Parts: sequence; structure tokens; C-alpha cells
Amino acid sequence: MAAFELNDRLRDDSDFIVALGLCELRLMDDRRWPWLVLIPQRPGIEELFELKPLDQALLTFETNLVAEALKKVAEATKVNVGALGNIVRQLHVHVVARRENDPNWPGPVWGFGARESYGADEKKALIEKILRAI
Amino acid sequence: MAAFELNDRLRDDSDFIVALGLCELRLMDDRRWPWLVLIPQRPGIEELFELKPLDQALLTFETNLVAEALKKVAEATKVNVGALGNIVRQLHVHVVARRENDPNWPGPVWGFGARESYGADEKKALIEKILRAI
Repeated sequence: MAAFELNDRLRDDSDFIVALGLCELRLMDDRRWPWLVLIPQRPGIEELFELKPLDQALLTFETNLVAEALKKVAEATKVNVGALGNIVRQLHVHVVARRENDPNWPGPVWGFGARESYGADEKKALIEKILRAI
Repeated sequence: MAAFELNDRLRDDSDFIVALGLCELRLMDDRRWPWLVLIPQRPGIEELFELKPLDQALLTFETNLVAEALKKVAEATKVNVGALGNIVRQLHVHVVARRENDPNWPGPVWGFGARESYGADEKKALIEKILRAI
């Protein structure tokens, strides 16, 4: 079986935070909303149900761990969790902190407007906050 | 603790299919895309991580069971799974069959255009197909 390799677009749009047991955790470079992506480090998987049962359980655990931490760090109103993959097929789970005054509340973040990059210091500080919270 | 009661808007927008171990499974009345909703029958839960660990595992199992069945029934290109809850706060998981010629491909279904209701026979036939597949 081929080794796991991160999709190019996911790599370009986000920054590495940490490798968890199953997933690589990354921060989307979009300061409009604190937005994490979890990518299970398994090759050739596109749908959640294609993961082995143990990996499904691990992904649930890691998603919920990260979602709870992000909600606190971002002081969010609601966390949005989604696995879409219509554009990038490599399985990845979005965990997005939403606030009532954000640019597309209460609509979804996917496909909305253009990404706004973080400043370097701002990004570093947010990654450190997330690491401390998980 | 209060008993579980289905949110009014979820009830109005969808039809009952079956009660699984944890979730009520419903069909969104929107013929633009085959769209299921799973609602964990637990009162007072808004975020995935607020469920007890066993319920988190059950929800994952039921979501993936239903997603795999829907992908086959709908001959879908991709399944989109999401828990948003920005409008209806009662925890619910969307499982949507997407096809490359659907009205908002590859964008998300949430917040897009207006719902188109099924005809009664069409709805009944789809619910029967889904029940046979799960």
C-alpha cells in the first residue's frame, strides 16, 4: 500500500500544528474564522466510512478533543464540523469556530468569499494557544 | 433531566425514516439532493463533544452506516457529512449525497437556494430504498 502523503492544496492552504495518534492537525490560513483541519494519515481514503472501525473511533476522539479546545480558545458561539471533500478528495475534517458577528454567520464557511491570511506573529500565537488547549 | 424532544424546525423540514440505537434518522424534504439527518435522542446537547464517549462512538457508527448506504442508493459522487447547528442548536448530523451535476456542486448545500419538496410517491420510494440499504 502506498504511504500517506498530504494533498498539495491542503498543504498550501494551511499550517502544521501537531501530529495526533491518527491525524495531522493543521490551521487553515484564514483569519476570518479560527479553522482547523484534521487529516487522517491513511492513504487512499475519501469517505469517513472507508476508514477501519478503530480509525473511525480515533478520528471521532481527535475531532471532539480539538473541537472542544478550539471553542474555548476562540470563545466561539458554535463549532462547525464537516467532512465534505467535493474539491479535495483526500479525507479531511474541518473544525471551525463560528461567532455571531463573523463574515458569513449563520451560513457555512465553505465556498464563501476569499481567504484572508494571518500575519506571522498572529498565526504563531494562535497555534501556541491551540497547542496549550489540547 | 428533561426528556428528548425533536426540534420543531427539524420536524417540519424532514420526514421520519427509522429510530436507530442512538439517533432518529430523518429524510430532508429537498429533492435537489438526497439528504439525511441524524438526531441523537439526548436532551440538551448542542456540540458533538458534549455527548458521552459511548454516544460519540454510537453516533460515528450510525453516521457511517447511513452514509455508506446513502452513497449507494443515490449513486453519489461524494457524501458530505456535517454538524453545523448555527441556526437549529439541537445537535444533528447532516449526511448529503452529492453529484457533480447537482445545483451547487462543488459548493455546500447549507444556505443554498430554496428547498424543493418531493412528491409523495417519490418520497415514499426513496425512504423504502434507504431502509432496505441500511
